[in-house]
Amino acid sequence: MPSETPQPAFVLVRPQMGENIGAAARAMWNFGLDRMRVVNPRDGWPSERAVAMASGAGRLLDEAVLYDGTSDAIADCHYVFATTARARGLTKPVVTPERAMQMAQEKIAAGEKVAVLFGPERAGLENDDIAKANAIINVPVNPEYASLNLGQCVLLTAYEWRRASETVVAERVDMAKTDWANNAEIDALQRHYEERLDQAGFFFPAPKAEGMKTNLRNMWSRMPLTRADVQMLHGVLRQMVRWKERGE
Amino acid sequence: MPSETPQPAFVLVRPQMGENIGAAARAMWNFGLDRMRVVNPRDGWPSERAVAMASGAGRLLDEAVLYDGTSDAIADCHYVFATTARARGLTKPVVTPERAMQMAQEKIAAGEKVAVLFGPERAGLENDDIAKANAIINVPVNPEYASLNLGQCVLLTAYEWRRASETVVAERVDMAKTDWANNAEIDALQRHYEERLDQAGFFFPAPKAEGMKTNLRNMWSRMPLTRADVQMLHGVLRQMVRWKERGE
Repeated sequence: MPSETPQPAFVLVRPQMGENIGAAARAMWNFGLDRMRVVNPRDGWPSERAVAMASGAGRLLDEAVLYDGTSDAIADCHYVFATTARARGLTKPVVTPERAMQMAQEKIAAGEKVAVLFGPERAGLENDDIAKANAIINVPVNPEYASLNLGQCVLLTAYEWRRASETVVAERVDMAKTDWANNAEIDALQRHYEERLDQAGFFFPAPKAEGMKTNLRNMWSRMPLTRADVQMLHGVLRQMVRWKERGE
Repeated sequence: MPSETPQPAFVLVRPQMGENIGAAARAMWNFGLDRMRVVNPRDGWPSERAVAMASGAGRLLDEAVLYDGTSDAIADCHYVFATTARARGLTKPVVTPERAMQMAQEKIAAGEKVAVLFGPERAGLENDDIAKANAIINVPVNPEYASLNLGQCVLLTAYEWRRASETVVAERVDMAKTDWANNAEIDALQRHYEERLDQAGFFFPAPKAEGMKTNLRNMWSRMPLTRADVQMLHGVLRQMVRWKERGE
């Protein structure tokens, strides 16, 4: 069963190779999209090659809806994007994948149905298909080398859909079964090092000792130390002392 | 020759299949990146399969620098990202591809060298490689289905680099050899339609005529009409009149 999540339909228009249809299914499902429509695939339907390529996302192919023409495939949609690599001599809004998927998100939240058209591998969409769309999605590729294939274009659009529809924390820290050290723990670490390094004669010459201690403390506090790190640093120092005491 | 554009180095660590190295080269060059480093590829170097797959981006493979180990490959770098699909029990900042490439952009602008590590296809980076990195890049995929391959991971990261390093206009309109109609042109169009529709008996009954004219004007002004559109709409009306005059 297709997921209940509101989402745009991705419409593959006259796709040529089954492998690419399978790759498109994987790309979609990687980003939680599972509504595929297929217009007149060159090598027939269902496609064994698509299924073989789709590993794990085969459900999208089983549930994909087949159409004879682009108009039928988007008949129930209120807003349609067409992906294309180059300008086509049609006056039409051109948006980035990011902006397109933000627009799709807003329209879908308002109850509209949205589709995105992807063209055949070699030639891309025909002007006749593009004229049916409300806006064009243009991926900002290197002007010297624009060679995104069907699966890659689907991947980037699906990725932007997920970015637009989910609040992803841009930056976090993975804590591996530990917590940040608190200030008391950093203090204790500093005292341990000061004491042992003092015994070891590290703070020399005497007039520089205070500055050296400040630098040491500053280093600890500049580092994002976890409790586990602090324990490890205590252990390092203890082991050096033990080694010395063994007198080897 | 590599481009002069400041950019991060993309480091493929122990890649397995040549095809994927070629796909990575294409993905990079699609977004203007051309500094590839390769650590200990499984099937040797140079790789015929990589070259066959890289069509048009083969220069990146010729210029790629080969290393025996990850440490050597990032020795000259000040900040290193590691891409990985899952948490690894290492305390480390985790960032989105977008945030990572914004950070890379800022660091590179400040003169630092930045690298991004990509792991082998099957297993991904080892913890030993990840421990060398300053931060982890995590693509926000569908938790039920995370199956991005090497080329796709390189593609999304390169795409985000281009987004971070270029000001791309999120929305524009492709003007097909025409200009927007100005208000005088819209006025003339309205007058033309009003006059002919009046003759045709369209504005009926009389008490509703003013409201109907306002609605017609409102429709023209709501539409983003080009000069070419306006000429076409004049032509439509003229032709209807000619047809009537032919008395067929």
